[in-house]
Amino acid sequence: MMIDYSNFYARIAHSPLRDWLQTLPKQVADWQQQQLHGDFGQWAKTLRLLPEVEPSEVDLQNRVKFGVESDIQPGDAAKLQGLLQQFKPWRKGPFDLFGMSIDTEWRSDWKWDRVAPHLDSLQDRHVLDIGCGSGYHLWRMKGAGAKMAVGIDPGQLFIMQFKAIQKYAPQAITNDVELLPLGVDDLPKLQVFDTVFSMGVLYHRRSPIEFLTQCRDQLRKDGQLVLETLVIQGDEYSVLMPEDRYAQMRNVWFLPSTAALCLWLRRCGFKDIQVVDLNRTSVEEQRATAWMENQSLVDFLDPKDTSKTIEGYPAPLRAVITARRI
Amino acid sequence: MMIDYSNFYARIAHSPLRDWLQTLPKQVADWQQQQLHGDFGQWAKTLRLLPEVEPSEVDLQNRVKFGVESDIQPGDAAKLQGLLQQFKPWRKGPFDLFGMSIDTEWRSDWKWDRVAPHLDSLQDRHVLDIGCGSGYHLWRMKGAGAKMAVGIDPGQLFIMQFKAIQKYAPQAITNDVELLPLGVDDLPKLQVFDTVFSMGVLYHRRSPIEFLTQCRDQLRKDGQLVLETLVIQGDEYSVLMPEDRYAQMRNVWFLPSTAALCLWLRRCGFKDIQVVDLNRTSVEEQRATAWMENQSLVDFLDPKDTSKTIEGYPAPLRAVITARRI
Amino acid sequence: MMIDYSNFYARIAHSPLRDWLQTLPKQVADWQQQQLHGDFGQWAKTLRLLPEVEPSEVDLQNRVKFGVESDIQPGDAAKLQGLLQQFKPWRKGPFDLFGMSIDTEWRSDWKWDRVAPHLDSLQDRHVLDIGCGSGYHLWRMKGAGAKMAVGIDPGQLFIMQFKAIQKYAPQAITNDVELLPLGVDDLPKLQVFDTVFSMGVLYHRRSPIEFLTQCRDQLRKDGQLVLETLVIQGDEYSVLMPEDRYAQMRNVWFLPSTAALCLWLRRCGFKDIQVVDLNRTSVEEQRATAWMENQSLVDFLDPKDTSKTIEGYPAPLRAVITARRI
Amino acid sequence: MMIDYSNFYARIAHSPLRDWLQTLPKQVADWQQQQLHGDFGQWAKTLRLLPEVEPSEVDLQNRVKFGVESDIQPGDAAKLQGLLQQFKPWRKGPFDLFGMSIDTEWRSDWKWDRVAPHLDSLQDRHVLDIGCGSGYHLWRMKGAGAKMAVGIDPGQLFIMQFKAIQKYAPQAITNDVELLPLGVDDLPKLQVFDTVFSMGVLYHRRSPIEFLTQCRDQLRKDGQLVLETLVIQGDEYSVLMPEDRYAQMRNVWFLPSTAALCLWLRRCGFKDIQVVDLNRTSVEEQRATAWMENQSLVDFLDPKDTSKTIEGYPAPLRAVITARRI
Repeated sequence: MMIDYSNFYARIAHSPLRDWLQTLPKQVADWQQQQLHGDFGQWAKTLRLLPEVEPSEVDLQNRVKFGVESDIQPGDAAKLQGLLQQFKPWRKGPFDLFGMSIDTEWRSDWKWDRVAPHLDSLQDRHVLDIGCGSGYHLWRMKGAGAKMAVGIDPGQLFIMQFKAIQKYAPQAITNDVELLPLGVDDLPKLQVFDTVFSMGVLYHRRSPIEFLTQCRDQLRKDGQLVLETLVIQGDEYSVLMPEDRYAQMRNVWFLPSTAALCLWLRRCGFKDIQVVDLNRTSVEEQRATAWMENQSLVDFLDPKDTSKTIEGYPAPLRAVITARRI
Repeated sequence: MMIDYSNFYARIAHSPLRDWLQTLPKQVADWQQQQLHGDFGQWAKTLRLLPEVEPSEVDLQNRVKFGVESDIQPGDAAKLQGLLQQFKPWRKGPFDLFGMSIDTEWRSDWKWDRVAPHLDSLQDRHVLDIGCGSGYHLWRMKGAGAKMAVGIDPGQLFIMQFKAIQKYAPQAITNDVELLPLGVDDLPKLQVFDTVFSMGVLYHRRSPIEFLTQCRDQLRKDGQLVLETLVIQGDEYSVLMPEDRYAQMRNVWFLPSTAALCLWLRRCGFKDIQVVDLNRTSVEEQRATAWMENQSLVDFLDPKDTSKTIEGYPAPLRAVITARRI
Repeated sequence: MMIDYSNFYARIAHSPLRDWLQTLPKQVADWQQQQLHGDFGQWAKTLRLLPEVEPSEVDLQNRVKFGVESDIQPGDAAKLQGLLQQFKPWRKGPFDLFGMSIDTEWRSDWKWDRVAPHLDSLQDRHVLDIGCGSGYHLWRMKGAGAKMAVGIDPGQLFIMQFKAIQKYAPQAITNDVELLPLGVDDLPKLQVFDTVFSMGVLYHRRSPIEFLTQCRDQLRKDGQLVLETLVIQGDEYSVLMPEDRYAQMRNVWFLPSTAALCLWLRRCGFKDIQVVDLNRTSVEEQRATAWMENQSLVDFLDPKDTSKTIEGYPAPLRAVITARRI
Repeated sequence: MMIDYSNFYARIAHSPLRDWLQTLPKQVADWQQQQLHGDFGQWAKTLRLLPEVEPSEVDLQNRVKFGVESDIQPGDAAKLQGLLQQFKPWRKGPFDLFGMSIDTEWRSDWKWDRVAPHLDSLQDRHVLDIGCGSGYHLWRMKGAGAKMAVGIDPGQLFIMQFKAIQKYAPQAITNDVELLPLGVDDLPKLQVFDTVFSMGVLYHRRSPIEFLTQCRDQLRKDGQLVLETLVIQGDEYSVLMPEDRYAQMRNVWFLPSTAALCLWLRRCGFKDIQVVDLNRTSVEEQRATAWMENQSLVDFLDPKDTSKTIEGYPAPLRAVITARRI
């Protein structure tokens, strides 16, 4: 019933991430202990039922694709699809497994396409993705040449989704891409990553300053932060906090203007700060699918004025900002 | 070389604050251990040299006054003044000891006069002052009838100044007023205080939301928060963060509008939120004196336009907001 | 459902035991938290049902006696007896409450009579009894003049029995006698007690050396240890460890000769070491009663040769040794 | 200035020892932090100056030998000898490096020869040596086929001596033999080792029962304990504790008879207990050498009666006992 991270521990022992061994194995063991209730056991069982299939081809540069239809027996294909649907809702993707498409709520590939041109080369880099969900972007980072792409997200279901996809990656790649069941507060100050991504997390934090400091504390000097978060229009003085929900999301705190956010980054020890993308989320990019059947963005906007959320706030506007650690 | 808090521990054992005994004595002992270097030893020695004098009268209702000139021998008066000056700079006051006036940087009595009319009665209440400095307002709270007035502030010098004043309070009062060398992060969730004051702290916190939550966690249900902090003009979306210093102060983070601050309070579990005072700090209220000879407000304002700080921000505007815990 | 130790905390704040506040309230609170299951709730309820009675006389010098028969209404007397019987088995005593005798398994008063002549005067002393059971000897220590008599024993039932007796002590005495739900491993190195008793504990410890060191760490310089434990005949090289049970007791480890034990004490930092009593436990001193209806010593001895336990070991021989801390 | 254990961490991640990662890297990092004073820095520098030499042959089956004289340049040989002498005193050995013999105080090979016939086969086993000193026996365990031979000893100098020897082991072997700077109290209950050695430790422990329990807690079910310690003549009741020093050693506690020790082992959860060797230590086996110039056994015995120590106790008699975990 345990998820085995031994490969990852052995891998990092010889990497710049080695100091992580001082805290990580204990945290993961504690986490495993806490999962012994709830759906975890059933999900872990589902994981073990996944059919063994070898992908004849892999594409991580243009999409996340493992194998083609002819790699898999028809019976296994049906079984694979049935088992993966037990991990619904799938939010970040899409994934292409042996000809089957996991059509997720988000077109995370569109986001990647907007972000990718602004990245310092990921070739041979150690990359961290804070709040990576099911890990879609980890695979794209590996596709862009990263030596290691490590994500953290404390959600049980995300771990399961990631492990299901990881099962079909070739061994060489598997060892370089991992998702760990941690929150950002669990990270020691590693100060070794070349690039740190955090997309869609900042507005969920009660302390954005603390969060930006935590991101900085993972970066080596001159390492790059890639931050994506909800923003509003306005000047350096403009910050929105919703009274309660925002676009039906609970637990949303600070939505700054990009000017305010850039100022925060300066205060937190970043330089070379650039707003590289500003995008009003479209109902094509975030929507219900066969793999995520709940409500989605279209339901969270004011039906009479889609420039507003149903609570009356400005509709979701997402900025990508890059910066480097001083 | 130790400062003795035994009276306080015995006092709270029989009060609603009793659960504090689970953490407080250990924290104070650790703090004492850490003070064994620096000026602490010298200051503690100065404390012990203070002359023994009994005050023939006390006034905590209109000022903080212990004794009159005729209570003290002239030689002792000179000695007292000389010793107390070793604890300069004195920031919060003024104090009136045996006819001698400790003329502090701040006219904290003016602030008290603005705040007092808006307080729920302090009669027989347990009151906490977070970031109380040398404890001027603790005495005024006692003067307003509080059963216990407890302050926290981690600054060594504040402890010394408080202990020097406390030495001249009658025993009955001494046991009811205490300053503990703690920061707000050191507090357990006591949820027992009737009133919590925090004046001049919020803008120094990297996470104002966390801070407001910590204030709430000290209050009993319906207990009153009295919050004083720097604010700016503006609507619910308006928040200033300085690039670096603000009025020459380091470590200043969020200066919200009162509208934004009220919203934050709602999100943190407060009700009955009212802005009861809004005051542009005058150079009469905060200024250099014989007991605080460093620069003061007048030096921190733009000499050509005193509506601005020398960094070009709006000059200090302080709001007092009251609220009650839901 | 909580047992309140506030009086004790207030009491020690002004005593040499004050440093105990750094650990004790937290340990007691944790202990209370852990008791929320099992019989504790029912027992605590029983405690609260005990009738209110004032003792007209008290004798702690010749026995543990609170009140006489005429102090209590006949109905209350019956109620008191019925409730106290819910705390069976009563092992250490006897207690005399309002004319009712709690006839315990042990005649602990006989043991006291053997020990008392060898004690440094307890007048105004702070005394600790490690493993005090229901606390019989604590009362006798108070009767011998101790300023405070504090016992520790982690057993739930002992706490209840003690609290039941304590309820009938006059207030002045109550504040000076307390039983805390701690094991010896929970004690910080207080080094303040004038006298430390430990009777019937050493042979239950896997590490007698560690235990003697812990006893020493509670004593002030020149403070007296009063140690009672099972011993065997023999020289400095003689130590018995039973294969399994000893006199039907589980968890018995080292039974040294008195010569070996004196050597251990020397190694652990004691001086003035004297064997003051050596007593083969009689079936009159330890036996089943109406208040302890289980098997007792007579059942644990070889019926054909009472000089041996039923396991074939030498029958219980108990030594009292006194020593002082270097 | 740090000693790198990354290889070991990577090695155990894929071994039955993997749970050790939950505590070990943090403990080692803390230890390194604490070594930053004293001789450690100088010694670490010495380690780095050791010449690079490849051994053309290795013998761990009959001795600990790395390389022959012709493998090394004469200048390097002199340098090697000079540097290794900085790690004096060398106690456990001997080591044979490129034709140079490190003639240690102890002929640990003689001890090995007495122990080896009684071992369960070490072939492919995971072996732990508690208190292994400079690690001589670790190499012999590897020579006997062990998959991994891990020692623990908190002494700085032992670590240096081990690392100096390890430098000349072929890579394949290096990864299988490690000495960790831990005491037995630092070990979690791993319960995975096939064989646990502890030679020359038990008599230094204040709690032999605790120590035997800790040894058991490292063994898998049916795993073998190999215990060597000082004993005395006598029956199950015989245990010697010296008043102060024993053969000039400080910190010596319990010296049981073999009968008493076997009983202790039974109480601690062992079976198949056998005394496989009993040996009065000779002045040929333990003596001063050019690599250990201090006093040695001959100086610790009574010159008039070498059957006694100079303190008058029986001269050192060492037993080897084997047992298996229940």
